[in-house]
Formats: sequence, structure tokens, C-alpha cells
Amino acid sequence: MKPIEYADATDAVRAVYDDIKRTRGVPDVNNFWKVLAHHPESLRRTWESLKVVMGPGSIDPVAKEMIYLAVSITNGCTYCIRSHEAAARKAGMTPAQHGELLAIVGMANETNSLATGYQVPVDAAFLER
Amino acid sequence: MKPIEYADATDAVRAVYDDIKRTRGVPDVNNFWKVLAHHPESLRRTWESLKVVMGPGSIDPVAKEMIYLAVSITNGCTYCIRSHEAAARKAGMTPAQHGELLAIVGMANETNSLATGYQVPVDAAFLER
Amino acid sequence: MKPIEYADATDAVRAVYDDIKRTRGVPDVNNFWKVLAHHPESLRRTWESLKVVMGPGSIDPVAKEMIYLAVSITNGCTYCIRSHEAAARKAGMTPAQHGELLAIVGMANETNSLATGYQVPVDAAFLER
Amino acid sequence: MKPIEYADATDAVRAVYDDIKRTRGVPDVNNFWKVLAHHPESLRRTWESLKVVMGPGSIDPVAKEMIYLAVSITNGCTYCIRSHEAAARKAGMTPAQHGELLAIVGMANETNSLATGYQVPVDAAFLER
Amino acid sequence: MKPIEYADATDAVRAVYDDIKRTRGVPDVNNFWKVLAHHPESLRRTWESLKVVMGPGSIDPVAKEMIYLAVSITNGCTYCIRSHEAAARKAGMTPAQHGELLAIVGMANETNSLATGYQVPVDAAFLER
Amino acid sequence: MKPIEYADATDAVRAVYDDIKRTRGVPDVNNFWKVLAHHPESLRRTWESLKVVMGPGSIDPVAKEMIYLAVSITNGCTYCIRSHEAAARKAGMTPAQHGELLAIVGMANETNSLATGYQVPVDAAFLER
Repeated sequence: MKPIEYADATDAVRAVYDDIKRTRGVPDVNNFWKVLAHHPESLRRTWESLKVVMGPGSIDPVAKEMIYLAVSITNGCTYCIRSHEAAARKAGMTPAQHGELLAIVGMANETNSLATGYQVPVDAAFLER
Repeated sequence: MKPIEYADATDAVRAVYDDIKRTRGVPDVNNFWKVLAHHPESLRRTWESLKVVMGPGSIDPVAKEMIYLAVSITNGCTYCIRSHEAAARKAGMTPAQHGELLAIVGMANETNSLATGYQVPVDAAFLER
Repeated sequence: MKPIEYADATDAVRAVYDDIKRTRGVPDVNNFWKVLAHHPESLRRTWESLKVVMGPGSIDPVAKEMIYLAVSITNGCTYCIRSHEAAARKAGMTPAQHGELLAIVGMANETNSLATGYQVPVDAAFLER
Repeated sequence: MKPIEYADATDAVRAVYDDIKRTRGVPDVNNFWKVLAHHPESLRRTWESLKVVMGPGSIDPVAKEMIYLAVSITNGCTYCIRSHEAAARKAGMTPAQHGELLAIVGMANETNSLATGYQVPVDAAFLER
Repeated sequence: MKPIEYADATDAVRAVYDDIKRTRGVPDVNNFWKVLAHHPESLRRTWESLKVVMGPGSIDPVAKEMIYLAVSITNGCTYCIRSHEAAARKAGMTPAQHGELLAIVGMANETNSLATGYQVPVDAAFLER
Repeated sequence: MKPIEYADATDAVRAVYDDIKRTRGVPDVNNFWKVLAHHPESLRRTWESLKVVMGPGSIDPVAKEMIYLAVSITNGCTYCIRSHEAAARKAGMTPAQHGELLAIVGMANETNSLATGYQVPVDAAFLER
């Protein structure tokens, strides 16, 4: 789907673009938002949700971005990996942390398939919560 | 596959069990290891890798466990979710952080499928690295 | 794998190509079939199945194509997204329906990971069937 | 995670439960919502989104539920399959439609892996949009 | 969905059950077929395909079953893991081969996520085919 | 991430490259290793594991590579499909076996989603192990 540029957008779409730019302090929004703009309701709703979820909270910003990136890698979503790797770096992820993050994601995918393949019974201790 | 208890394990398997217990300061190992023990080489190799990957590094321990948990949820691995949620709590994850983590994982899965479904073209800025 | 064009195909492969063209009223078959032709038995078997599954039944044609597209997005299969989005449009999917479809797929992926991450117990009412 | 019943819920959580019951005309909410209630912000945000996405639009209600179910099956989310199969039936899905839906989902998963395995090149016609 | 037993099945369904029993030399069919019987056309079509795909060919029977099991583990399908592990054993898979198979599946899932996470560019040599 | 060539690599990285070249009898290593070299510890650890897992054992080399390829297709990892298809061919996979392999992977993905979609109860016989 072709991205919709600011100049070609409706007022409702521009209002979301403006809020993204203000919130993030960036001169333009990414293609993700410009494509979502084909369905303005999804654009508005997704941005409102993302602003809350990725905004200030009890997990620090770089860890939040690394968690987002870990999910994106596991799903094999190229766009998401590229954009959230950039976001994680901007938030402060160092090259060493990036290398460790990928090692954890790789290891988790390996042990996940081992646990599934062996059909490991859940330990009684993990059921109490 | 049935877990192999310490009493029934070979010396090679016991040596790994002992190292896990020592490293983690726990009285017994989880079923994951007791099942992997059916293939001692996998037990040894997986533990040696996990010890390095989840050991001290540049990402703090609770963030490491939250990343592991995020991958496990995305893969839908019940055993892994249960055991790594417990590990994350032990490492210090608070209920508020757990709630935020799940919100991020949910949001990432939603936007991943939106980016994929719309076939969003990668922004030029994300290709430079 | 390189697509096998009609001119280069065996008689058995041409017979399937001809049936696809006749059934769909198209001048040529897609690359999917031209690549499957490397294993003629798979070409024949897959087409025979698809013809039945996507043929007239109790679900209307555009809904069938939207279901197919929803699965393809969730699997992250680029070829399948591109070809089934085209097929859904041809069957009558409007831009508004396309936008809603993607919103549903995104939402389903979000709530799926929330249900999995929280390990929600199945309601008793859902077990009776 | 244990479901939080109405009697034990805070006012903010009860307000969401009440809106779900009113909107759907049901006497109680499903476990999904009762578990999300551990993170009230996620409860509110997810319900507000779902109400919009699954509410009246250009795709008919039973097709919407079938699309949701198709994603849930592809993700292998047991809770989601059980609850959305029930929702689809309530919306009017017949046993014949259920059988056809599953046939489409199965077929889509087969052809998705064939397209991926053969690395089928995208037809030029599918790139124009 | 409840399995449909032979005694309660229609003639068309019984004909497929009989063919499965004859082909496999077993006294009864698995629940998979008894559940598919709710949609007789899917039962017939799926069995006809499976009989061809898993029948004699150029890959030996135990390797075929191990490939099937590898896919089932990667998809996290419990029923499929249980039934195809049994089928692989019946076809001759030894405990040592089972252990090695799981090690390969684990390793493949690890390196797959590393290749995806690092966005490794495809080597020129792999594009020539 | 940009591949690190031998000329630009540290001694520790070169030692791994040398071992890969020696073990496989190849003049250069693939991009996968050259990218992993950004995190030398992951390079060393992953290679040590892969050498054991894919080395001589009780499953023959071509079957090992076909299992690896089956997982890679199911994960939709383009790099992995391309590189392991090449590796499988080098190990002796014939075009006929490649066609059959893809048919099995496709079939397994179809029946996996049918078993999941119908929520087939595990047969008692498959629980005994």
C-alpha cells in the first residue's frame, strides 16, 4: 500500500501525524503511519494505544523497545525489526546490548522448541500463582 | 517425555544438574532439564549456552528475563511462559511491570500484523546501518 | 525456484494449467502454479483441493478470500498476501472492507498474545460443544 | 492468572465489565476480561479497541468472527479458538460454514508453506496497487 | 469437537475409515480422522492427499515422519507432536535419533531467529538456482 | 547488519572462520557467520553447537539437512531456506526428494491447523510414553 504524505492527507489524518511528530520530536512520521492512514480509524486507534503502551511507565524505555524488537524478530516481521531496532538505538541500546538481545532471542527460540518437542510437563511450582 | 530424577541419572547428567543447582542456588532443577537429560549431549550443550546468555552482561537480569518471556508468549509455549514468568518475578519483575510487558507484547503482535498486512515499505532511514 | 511456462511444460502440467485457466477465466496461471509444476503430483493435488475448498459452498466468495488473506497475514507469507489480496479484490472486497479486515487481524493477534501471555483459563461455557 | 470477579473488582474495572455486559447483552464477562483486569489500563484500552473493530461496519458480523477465528487457529491460541468459535456460532455460523472455514484455514496454511518453501517470485500483476 | 465412532458414522465416512485401516494395518483410526468426519469432504480429501504424500517415494519412511514431526514441533501443535512422534517410532525412529531430531529442531529455531534478527543478506551463491 | 570479512576480523573471529572452513572444506564462510561476528561470543557458541548437532550421528546427513529446511520453511526465514536448501543439495538431496519434502511440509502445516482448529483430543495411546 502506498504511503499517504502529509500534503495529501485529510485533516483527521494530519491531526494524528501532528501528534506523533510532537510526541516523538521528529520532523516526519514513518511509513507505518502513512500506510495506516488508508483507514483513518485504525491510524487514530493504533496511535492512541501505542502512545500509552510505549509511554512512561514502570519498565525503562530501552527495555521496552528491546521487548518490542524481540517480538518482531520472533514474528519475522522485516519492517518491524528495522524500525524498532532504530527506535531501540535511539532510546540508548548499545551494540553490546543488541548482541546480547539477539543471543537471548535465539536461545529462547531454541529452548521453546525443545520444551515443546519434548512436551515437558509444567513443574508444580510454576502452577501456583 | 518423563523427567529423569537425580537418583536415576548417570554421572554425566548429575554433573550438569549439580552445576545448575550451584549456579542458581536452587535445591533441585526444573523439569525442562530433567527431560533434556534423555539426550545428555543436548542437556550439557543447552545448559552451557544458557549459562553464558543469561549470565551477567550489559542488559540487566530482569530485562533479560522479560525479553525471554516476550519470545515465549509470541511462540505460545506454555511451559516456557510459566517457567520464565516465575524466573522474571524472582529476578525482580513487579506486577506493574508484568502488566506493561504483556501490553507491549500484545501491541507488538498487533502492529506486526498491520505492517505485514499492509506490506509497509521500509523507510529509507531504517536501511542505513 | 524458476516458474515453468506453458510452452515448456509437459502435457500433464498443461492439463492442470488449462483447468485453472478455464475455472478462473484467466489468460494465464500465477507463478505459484508455475513453480509447483516442478513436482507435477503436488501441482495436480493442490489444485484439486483448492478448487473444492474455494469453490461454491456455504460461505460467500469474498468472505472466503478474506479468511484466506487473514491466515496469510498471520503467517507473514508475502507471496500469499499479495496474491490473495488481489483475489479478494476481484471477488468484490472494497477498500473499506480491506481496512476493517486488517483491523480485525491486528486485533486478533493482539488479544491472542494477551490470552496466551496471561494464560487465561478457558471458561466452562466454551468447553461444552 | 486468576480471573477477578465483579464482586472483587475496583470501580474502574466494574465500569468496563458493565459496558461489556450492556454492549453484548450478556449476564457476565468472559475470563479474558477478568484476567486483563489485573492491569486496568489494558482492560479499558483493549475493550475500547475491540468494541470499535468488531462493531458494525462493512463486513458482516459472522464473517468478522470467522476471520478472528482463522487468525486464532493459525496462532494456535486455545483460549481464542474456544471463545471465538462460540462467538461465531452465536453470530450465526452454521456447522457447514464451520467445516468450510477450517478447510480454508488448513488449505491456506498448506499453500502458504508451499509458496514460502519454493520461494515463489511475486507476479508482476500483484505488485501494482 | 467430539470424535465420530465407526458405529455412528455414515457410509461415506466408514469407507474412508476402512481405507485408512487397510492402508495402515490398524484396528481403528485416530481421533484426528474421527473429528474430521464432521465435514466428510475434508475427511476424504485430506486422507487422499496424506496417503499420496506419506506413501512410498524417494524419501525413506522414517525421515518422512521426522520431517512431519519437525514441522509440528515448530508449530507447537500438541496433537500433531504426540501422534507423529508415535508414527515416527513405529516407522523405526530410535531414541538416539529422536534426541538428535529435537536438537536439530532447536538449533534451527535458534539460528532462524538469529538470521532474522540480524537481517543477514542472502549470499550471492544461494540466489543461483 | 554488514558482514565482517576475514581481512577485517579480529583473531578470535578468524579462528572460528578458519574452523568452519576446515570442517566444511569451503574457501569462505557464509554471511550468517560474518554477521554473527559482530558478537564474537555468539559466533563461537553458535558454531560450536552447530558443529555438534549437524555433525555425524544416528540420522544421515541429507535427512538432517531436510529437517533443518522443514523448520526454516515453517518459520518463513528466507535466508535459512536459501542456505539450507543449498546445504541439502550439497548433502545429496535430489530434485524428487526436494519436491516430496515440500509436499510433506505443506501437508503437515495443513493438518496441524486442522488438528488445532478442531481441537482434536489426544488419543489415549499417544499419551503412554
